[in-house]
Amino acid sequence: MTADPALQRVLVVGTGLIGTSIALALRDAGVAVHLLDRNGAAARLAAALGAGTADALTQPAELAVLAVPPSSVGASAATVLDSDLAETVTDVASVKVAPHVDLVTRGVDLSRYVGGHPMSGRERSGPGAGRADLFVGRPWVLTPSAESSAISVDRARELVRLCGATAITMTAEDHDRAVALVSHSPHVVASALASGLVDADPAALALAGPGLLDTTRIAASDPALWTQILKANADATADVLEMVAGQIEKVAAALRGKDGAEAITRVLAQGADGRRALPGKHGQRPTTFAVVPVVVKDRPGQLGRLFADAGEAEVNIEDVAIEHSPGQPVGVVELSVRPEHAAALTDALHARGWSVHG
Amino acid sequence: MTADPALQRVLVVGTGLIGTSIALALRDAGVAVHLLDRNGAAARLAAALGAGTADALTQPAELAVLAVPPSSVGASAATVLDSDLAETVTDVASVKVAPHVDLVTRGVDLSRYVGGHPMSGRERSGPGAGRADLFVGRPWVLTPSAESSAISVDRARELVRLCGATAITMTAEDHDRAVALVSHSPHVVASALASGLVDADPAALALAGPGLLDTTRIAASDPALWTQILKANADATADVLEMVAGQIEKVAAALRGKDGAEAITRVLAQGADGRRALPGKHGQRPTTFAVVPVVVKDRPGQLGRLFADAGEAEVNIEDVAIEHSPGQPVGVVELSVRPEHAAALTDALHARGWSVHG
Repeated sequence: MTADPALQRVLVVGTGLIGTSIALALRDAGVAVHLLDRNGAAARLAAALGAGTADALTQPAELAVLAVPPSSVGASAATVLDSDLAETVTDVASVKVAPHVDLVTRGVDLSRYVGGHPMSGRERSGPGAGRADLFVGRPWVLTPSAESSAISVDRARELVRLCGATAITMTAEDHDRAVALVSHSPHVVASALASGLVDADPAALALAGPGLLDTTRIAASDPALWTQILKANADATADVLEMVAGQIEKVAAALRGKDGAEAITRVLAQGADGRRALPGKHGQRPTTFAVVPVVVKDRPGQLGRLFADAGEAEVNIEDVAIEHSPGQPVGVVELSVRPEHAAALTDALHARGWSVHG
Repeated sequence: MTADPALQRVLVVGTGLIGTSIALALRDAGVAVHLLDRNGAAARLAAALGAGTADALTQPAELAVLAVPPSSVGASAATVLDSDLAETVTDVASVKVAPHVDLVTRGVDLSRYVGGHPMSGRERSGPGAGRADLFVGRPWVLTPSAESSAISVDRARELVRLCGATAITMTAEDHDRAVALVSHSPHVVASALASGLVDADPAALALAGPGLLDTTRIAASDPALWTQILKANADATADVLEMVAGQIEKVAAALRGKDGAEAITRVLAQGADGRRALPGKHGQRPTTFAVVPVVVKDRPGQLGRLFADAGEAEVNIEDVAIEHSPGQPVGVVELSVRPEHAAALTDALHARGWSVHG
């Protein structure tokens, strides 16, 4: 075994969205990719999409990427390593402790395993939804154990690099606690809130604004898939959920009492602090952007004209929000820009006849 | 008193964001607006911004709009009506039962009062943040009581029309239950979730994606203001919060047990159903838009070029999302279009050299 972590040949096991996307990114980087799926047709479809070949390996790959459900990682890793299909294996499961425990139980050579979790996804699934750029600029967690060999870790890092992602190394336990907080619990909380809308009066729902739409957006996810994900990270997620339920109950109890305003304010203030702790774009703390609101008609070409005019002002638009206008063919487009650019953008759009409200 | 609901002269009491925005919209419609604020400087600032005059009325207005905190509506209405400053009064408070009860207690002539609540707002406050178009296309709830006179109701409706909003009539009780569900409770839930981020490891927060950012966005709101709002709608909000906390606890309990997958799936499925019950753009149920993802460099002019090119394809962009890319100067812009337009847009952008991933 050489100490060169360069990847010439990679085996991708599981050609769903994530596996196919990784394969496409590796193909773009000139790596030979072999595709394997329990469902041969899925592997052949991914191959037809340019993700690699569904033919059998003639020599071991340097790396196998297991893009299979968390509960299958152990069996899949054991098969790949026992058959010497690859020298190193990594996976993409959204939990990391359970697969590691499974590998230990199976007596797999842990020097050849490095856990991984690319923090990307999309609402669609299957090889047809694969995109070579799915991981570009996104975090990709690696959870090497004390047993992982240096060359195994280097190969996993090279995979992340070739996919255009940013490697973040942490322990499997820290990873699972982190995703319980930033990913798994928010799904449950959004679902719990949205579940109250099922039997609501349509007149009440007509009053919903962007706040409720944002807060419940991820409640649209697939219940069966998310049940699996939550069960695989059960204790860490339950810890967070119990905290959140406790905070909500504190506010409810204060509202039932005659006073208790301090208890309410405390939860809201902690929430505002927590929100501010989240990193913004470019991995920095959120910059307070200036928002330039522009009234537009809801018809073809309006946004095109607006952005063309904004582009001529040489101002970088950091974010865009379209405020939906129930029942009206007019809307407000909010352009977020660095504060020092707001005046120039406002002037430029005014000069071109836009209804700007800076 | 005439039966003509036309508004020639309106008194706006309270020149914060909402009062000033209403005054600006009325001025645009040619109505004479008188501004009154406990803080005379605020009324003069609003007047300087073109929202009307801070001079005293020389004859009664047809309508007074009380843009004051919920707890001040009763006293303010009594003053206006007792002094005959206006024939009819309406308010803009985000709760409607409590002000009505206050008016009854004060023995105000209820035929001259119609409760109102424009469903608009923004993060900024004060007269300087006022915008004449703040209410355009947004719902504006009116809660006339059995005592409200026909001319009072007509004047309130005329106010809504002049502001470009859509009047929705319901009882004060229905209104308060509706906003508890779609506005007040979501704020508490977002805050409770975000409160868990305060002491989190920055490495964990670096894994946060668009899901957590969306779910916690409204947690950034002002804790003191929201404490007041929640207390004014205490029971209806507590009802919803107890339901939400109960749903979260059901999931947490199932995660602590050995099985219980059905209990988890049930909450998630109810959440997905509830999310689908929300009206989308144009007041309709959400259309499933096709999403056309385009990779762009994060620098000035890119979005301008993209939207200009999209505009030439004559396709109406229904929504835009920019996927933030921590640590990378590249991002994915997701253009939502009607499914039948996706192919044309993809082809047009491809032809113009864009990296489109349809």
